[in-house]
Amino acid sequence: MRHPTDVRRRLLDAARQLFARDGYEGASVRDITRRARANLGAVTYHFGSKEALYHAVFAEFAEPFKRHVAAAVEDGGSALDRIEAIVRAFFHHIESHPEMPPLLLRQLSSGRPVPPPMAEAMRYNVALIVGTIAAGQREGTIRAGEPLLLALGVISQPVYLAVAAPVIKRVAGVDTKSPELRERVIETVAATVRAGLAGPGAPPPRTRRSA
Amino acid sequence: MRHPTDVRRRLLDAARQLFARDGYEGASVRDITRRARANLGAVTYHFGSKEALYHAVFAEFAEPFKRHVAAAVEDGGSALDRIEAIVRAFFHHIESHPEMPPLLLRQLSSGRPVPPPMAEAMRYNVALIVGTIAAGQREGTIRAGEPLLLALGVISQPVYLAVAAPVIKRVAGVDTKSPELRERVIETVAATVRAGLAGPGAPPPRTRRSA
Repeated sequence: MRHPTDVRRRLLDAARQLFARDGYEGASVRDITRRARANLGAVTYHFGSKEALYHAVFAEFAEPFKRHVAAAVEDGGSALDRIEAIVRAFFHHIESHPEMPPLLLRQLSSGRPVPPPMAEAMRYNVALIVGTIAAGQREGTIRAGEPLLLALGVISQPVYLAVAAPVIKRVAGVDTKSPELRERVIETVAATVRAGLAGPGAPPPRTRRSA
Repeated sequence: MRHPTDVRRRLLDAARQLFARDGYEGASVRDITRRARANLGAVTYHFGSKEALYHAVFAEFAEPFKRHVAAAVEDGGSALDRIEAIVRAFFHHIESHPEMPPLLLRQLSSGRPVPPPMAEAMRYNVALIVGTIAAGQREGTIRAGEPLLLALGVISQPVYLAVAAPVIKRVAGVDTKSPELRERVIETVAATVRAGLAGPGAPPPRTRRSA
């Protein structure tokens, strides 16, 4: 007999793949259970509803996202160093969840309410970046400006590059996810964010292992 | 008798609205012609096919986009000033075509090939930014780095903020499109891009009419 948690795991995997490919409306409970090799009632049994399964798919990305970003800040250094670490954490976290960019695009374009675990992670990460920018402005490592608007700029580069990678590849002929380019993209964005926010008391970039 | 160009115009408007709301697959020729108060054969008559109509919708955004961005560069100044002008042109162009962000999201998330007029405008704008960055590196107003990767970073902020505005509003409670915030968002991003790219010979920002 199969362990029930295996079924739950397979439902999450099948749902993530199908929601990413077909959207919330396009992926039926029948499609998901068939792909997961589960019976038609398994979604209700394990999650309660299709919507709750959808939220659970986002939770698997969103909850470790908060931890990952919070851990980046704990590495210390000036506030400017911590912002740079957050940018790297964004890239690495998104990269380790390759179905998230298409899932986020599907979600954004649907106009459906943002799943609560995702909304909560976004609020958490934005608040952390805003707080770090404000701390940097007090210590002088980050320039003046509205912390929230500066924070949205910080987020935009890793998120846009993750989400638009397939189009950039098709249109500009550059595969920003390729092993050759991946590190250079991250280094370029990290340096740009750093230079874009640096205040009068900014320290020089910390030496990193060569990319 | 109605003039045939009126029908063409109404088909473009109806298609833009429905493709933005329902996606390419979700908007049927029947839906589009009904909304445009045209007969069912009007799409074929005026455009040849549903796909050609879809491309024409993108062309209406993409062709003036190239002109708008090229005009920003003609204003002169250092290469760094010209990049800042391009960022403002991106914001203003997207803002004057409010259905483009949802249409672009739908397009991105569909995985369908990028409509040729859009792909061409993207290539044109990226090449213009890359060329301007390379010129700035030669004159010293823009720092060292791979021009293409720096260019993708330049594009990401206006595009992300346009496309993610509804989610930012819902999740962070800030309406970046509101009259109070709109100008401050543009000024913050323009200043961040400028600082992020400035080289050793960068001029101070040009004085602008107060926002």
